[in-house]
Amino acid sequence: MLSIPDLKPEKHYNAVGILTSGGDSSGMNPAIRSIVRAALNSGVKQVFGVRRGYQGLVSDDITLMSSRSVTNIVQKGGTVLKSARCPEFSDPSVRDVAARNLSSRGIEALVVIGGDGSLTGAHILCQEHGIPVIGLPGTIDNDIPGTDDTIGFDTAVNTAVEAIDRIRDTARSHERLFLVEVMGRNSGFIATQVGIACGAEMVVVPEYAFDFHDLCITLAERHSKGQGSSGIIVVAEGRDPDLTHRLAAQLKAQGQDPKISILGHIQRGGSPSGHDRMLASCLGTAAVEYLLAGYSDIMVGVHKGAIVDVPLQRVIEEKKVLDRKLFDIAALLHK
Amino acid sequence: MLSIPDLKPEKHYNAVGILTSGGDSSGMNPAIRSIVRAALNSGVKQVFGVRRGYQGLVSDDITLMSSRSVTNIVQKGGTVLKSARCPEFSDPSVRDVAARNLSSRGIEALVVIGGDGSLTGAHILCQEHGIPVIGLPGTIDNDIPGTDDTIGFDTAVNTAVEAIDRIRDTARSHERLFLVEVMGRNSGFIATQVGIACGAEMVVVPEYAFDFHDLCITLAERHSKGQGSSGIIVVAEGRDPDLTHRLAAQLKAQGQDPKISILGHIQRGGSPSGHDRMLASCLGTAAVEYLLAGYSDIMVGVHKGAIVDVPLQRVIEEKKVLDRKLFDIAALLHK
Amino acid sequence: MLSIPDLKPEKHYNAVGILTSGGDSSGMNPAIRSIVRAALNSGVKQVFGVRRGYQGLVSDDITLMSSRSVTNIVQKGGTVLKSARCPEFSDPSVRDVAARNLSSRGIEALVVIGGDGSLTGAHILCQEHGIPVIGLPGTIDNDIPGTDDTIGFDTAVNTAVEAIDRIRDTARSHERLFLVEVMGRNSGFIATQVGIACGAEMVVVPEYAFDFHDLCITLAERHSKGQGSSGIIVVAEGRDPDLTHRLAAQLKAQGQDPKISILGHIQRGGSPSGHDRMLASCLGTAAVEYLLAGYSDIMVGVHKGAIVDVPLQRVIEEKKVLDRKLFDIAALLHK
Amino acid sequence: MLSIPDLKPEKHYNAVGILTSGGDSSGMNPAIRSIVRAALNSGVKQVFGVRRGYQGLVSDDITLMSSRSVTNIVQKGGTVLKSARCPEFSDPSVRDVAARNLSSRGIEALVVIGGDGSLTGAHILCQEHGIPVIGLPGTIDNDIPGTDDTIGFDTAVNTAVEAIDRIRDTARSHERLFLVEVMGRNSGFIATQVGIACGAEMVVVPEYAFDFHDLCITLAERHSKGQGSSGIIVVAEGRDPDLTHRLAAQLKAQGQDPKISILGHIQRGGSPSGHDRMLASCLGTAAVEYLLAGYSDIMVGVHKGAIVDVPLQRVIEEKKVLDRKLFDIAALLHK
Repeated sequence: MLSIPDLKPEKHYNAVGILTSGGDSSGMNPAIRSIVRAALNSGVKQVFGVRRGYQGLVSDDITLMSSRSVTNIVQKGGTVLKSARCPEFSDPSVRDVAARNLSSRGIEALVVIGGDGSLTGAHILCQEHGIPVIGLPGTIDNDIPGTDDTIGFDTAVNTAVEAIDRIRDTARSHERLFLVEVMGRNSGFIATQVGIACGAEMVVVPEYAFDFHDLCITLAERHSKGQGSSGIIVVAEGRDPDLTHRLAAQLKAQGQDPKISILGHIQRGGSPSGHDRMLASCLGTAAVEYLLAGYSDIMVGVHKGAIVDVPLQRVIEEKKVLDRKLFDIAALLHK
Repeated sequence: MLSIPDLKPEKHYNAVGILTSGGDSSGMNPAIRSIVRAALNSGVKQVFGVRRGYQGLVSDDITLMSSRSVTNIVQKGGTVLKSARCPEFSDPSVRDVAARNLSSRGIEALVVIGGDGSLTGAHILCQEHGIPVIGLPGTIDNDIPGTDDTIGFDTAVNTAVEAIDRIRDTARSHERLFLVEVMGRNSGFIATQVGIACGAEMVVVPEYAFDFHDLCITLAERHSKGQGSSGIIVVAEGRDPDLTHRLAAQLKAQGQDPKISILGHIQRGGSPSGHDRMLASCLGTAAVEYLLAGYSDIMVGVHKGAIVDVPLQRVIEEKKVLDRKLFDIAALLHK
Repeated sequence: MLSIPDLKPEKHYNAVGILTSGGDSSGMNPAIRSIVRAALNSGVKQVFGVRRGYQGLVSDDITLMSSRSVTNIVQKGGTVLKSARCPEFSDPSVRDVAARNLSSRGIEALVVIGGDGSLTGAHILCQEHGIPVIGLPGTIDNDIPGTDDTIGFDTAVNTAVEAIDRIRDTARSHERLFLVEVMGRNSGFIATQVGIACGAEMVVVPEYAFDFHDLCITLAERHSKGQGSSGIIVVAEGRDPDLTHRLAAQLKAQGQDPKISILGHIQRGGSPSGHDRMLASCLGTAAVEYLLAGYSDIMVGVHKGAIVDVPLQRVIEEKKVLDRKLFDIAALLHK
Repeated sequence: MLSIPDLKPEKHYNAVGILTSGGDSSGMNPAIRSIVRAALNSGVKQVFGVRRGYQGLVSDDITLMSSRSVTNIVQKGGTVLKSARCPEFSDPSVRDVAARNLSSRGIEALVVIGGDGSLTGAHILCQEHGIPVIGLPGTIDNDIPGTDDTIGFDTAVNTAVEAIDRIRDTARSHERLFLVEVMGRNSGFIATQVGIACGAEMVVVPEYAFDFHDLCITLAERHSKGQGSSGIIVVAEGRDPDLTHRLAAQLKAQGQDPKISILGHIQRGGSPSGHDRMLASCLGTAAVEYLLAGYSDIMVGVHKGAIVDVPLQRVIEEKKVLDRKLFDIAALLHK
């Protein structure tokens, strides 16, 4: 249960925009819904939805939203505002166009839901053009500094866990070893949580060195304890696209016969979990409250069970660390 | 992501017992698994499973467990140790039998997973017989003081959310109002989280007064805004078993034609969510660490994103409060 | 895999209407989608959606549909055309209004998706006003004569099966007996399929006499075989709304302590199963083909693995029989 | 609802063996359960489970089963008897060992659940050693001649459909084209059913020529109709392991930017659907009835909604054909 700060409204905005950007994550829709409704219920006159992320800001693909236009989206995966990559947003002249589009419609502030690239864009827009921005962490990877949780992470973990539960049926029936690659970009948050949740025999993440020799010992130990030759190794996609296949080759050289499963894009979508809907609803409401309390250039996230604000500058500069203790639990519990 | 304390082992136990008691909750099995494995990996020589809660303690229904005996249970609902009510445990002479059974097998400490009744039993056993006990919060209701989260809550919320998503299909197709009763004993934690997650039109909980007139206005407003006459009202079961039906009767008297759905026992079981498996695995590991660090008569729970210890005395005496701010968000977002 | 008849188009229709009526069932949306697209792809110029069943026909709540207007509905529960009861449709003068509304928009034929009441309405409209109609069996109850399967049955069974799997976790953990009431109106098709699929200890259906004494023997036998005192009894709702509670009372009088779970409305909605989407897509396509081949006053259903046409007259007059052999398998397999 | 033949018991067997072989499929467990219970309830004295398919027959890895040993497996994916490939079974001297192992335990007949390779093994064993065998079609691929359905097909379709529903969220949010590869060995049954159920823009199967030019036109048409540039192309794995990647390359050359998702092993496991549990329960029961009626060297399958027997010889020699009409519906409905 999230603790929510008490903030006093100090500012008034006539019109606010919302934008989802970067890879979609499940929970963006309940976030959009709560921003729209919280804003309209707090006296904001108009809420605009920017379509296709920063691309829509540049191409002026912007529509008016109402309380009704976000009816029945709380349970939907993806983002009704659509998302897109917009590499040209790194060009200042392109950002000028975006700022003009906002101003021509009277949009005075912007809430951006996305990952670190999206939040960087928000920060620069704020710095350059003085547009008040609030960021929300929307990514399945949970790799945003300053927040313990991100919108979409819990759903992605549940999806991966259910998929691996299925794979385990086959692994146990055939007494086979499976290498299952999960998403997570350069971080091992998904892999660690999924590995613990699935009782994986090993978890491989970019953050911590992985000892192949150790894996072989673990597998041999399990075998001698009668825990069978079936097993699941969860591998974070990481920076090295060939890691999973190379690992499989190494295991084959050791006499194992591992199968590979790349979970891929099934982890992104799907109806958001209860947790992600709750998180998104609370963060969306809080985003509006922070905005009306005069905050800007911040991300609204979760830390130690409470909703907090974090300067976007810090979000951009820091790197989120995967707790070693947590990672070690995965190793401890398969024994 | 949970933060886990660093504890130094100070004590040695030859044999430890585990017991699940009270209503089963999803995640008890990964908790059992992590306690067994963490204990055996930390030098505890024997781990015993007590079957059927305190009843098994009294009837000496106790079996030796091994790392292998908890293989492939991480994904299973319910509790492999089974559970039962044991009203006779309130009799001191019955507790004497329990203590003798533990001592006759050389069981030196006990980890109890359950709700407040179960934790009360553990506290008394510790006080009376000097048996070191560690409690873990295992209940779908999330109503245990001293911990922000309980094993089984997240899964129960997800199950209720999925069920209500289905009901909403019918509610929208027929433009009907549904009263959906969720579990939660005397508290509204499940109802509030589910209500927010499902975009319910109203949430009724035991903690906060409910204004029937207000509900009528809300329904009328929605109607006039064109949000349709379909809707979901989430009702916590609470102390009054007739509340949901009485509410339906009141709404009928106002010209509405509400349908009732009592979600009931489907909320308890089912494969635990990724979150609950993670929580249970971390709490189980921590329970062993606290025990070996010399702690006793405590519950190991979660507070502000960290694993913490709480005196069982406090757990028994206090009442957990449902955050008003959170509850208000449910009301805010349906508008 | 369904076998689909080869039909030659013999007729041309400029405009066709679609209507969903009665209790919603999961798969109505893919049926709507396939009717719209099959019609437009077969030369029908306009497809109209009638909203709220026969009520919309009477109140002229009719909208033009396009291929695009049924995009992304294949996975949605309920019916985008909405449904309603319309008791006044039994009045001939009301049906005259309906017929005039169709004719004033140039709608020359109607496809009706629904249960027996809905198909009766279609038949009378056809008989009285000469409007060509094709019916599709859309009900979770699978109680429509002339077809082995109905749109929504498979999804409802899966939902009930998943719910009972959850309940079984609790039943086994607490060694309790559960009475689970499933839908099915006056028939036991859902109960029988669910009972077999869940390994229920007993299935109670309206079609076959139920021997309470036999149940007591079964429970005693299971107990003596060491199969435990937990168990699931699946009860079809049937005509007697008190049956489940009365059964529970009888069991209590025998010293059992059964719990009751009424699955209720969660069985209706939810994303349609693969089977129901396939069935709905094929039936919808076939409905258009039968219409264009000159058929009318028929239901398009499934018999012996093939898509068939059945006179609506027969659908209305007959009663579908629950195969005794199938019912007996449920009893056989719990032993 | 399956129609089940009436067969009179003509033979008596003291002991019967069960074996699952080849790739596991969801529903093998309810099949095992129903064979064990139907046999014991029909007067067979002993039922033996052969572990690890034909490998266990050769290595004498055979255990006695009881009604209780199949309790609570009806809902489990995979096979509790485990499965394995056994290439050495093609050696007659190895089959001699298998036959001796059966005879030394007094096992007089064998029920084999698996795909075509497994059923071929059963046929040869019967021919060579006169051992009565009954085969059941257990494979997710639904590619067994003589039966319209196989144990595991429906569950695999549902799993793939749910996965693609998730992918569609991302496809629509990002307006991207996805190539999703599903299982099915050399046949397109899974791909076709999944393609129709998901409203795929195109289905590529080994049975029917695929016109790349046609796909480009379809995508262009959809674009011009405003149905967006997002889309799902379902590709059966087929004989050509590079097909999906080659298709992606061709689409890239045309200016598209498709993403690839290989669903892989998640399609095999998971709790069986209601349909597969029902099918497996009925086929398992029928297998025992056919055996006791004196049948041998047959597969018990489903044809035109009825349970039927098919000579194993025919199963081995024929090739199951994917209905062209059904395949065409997939193409028809995306328009």
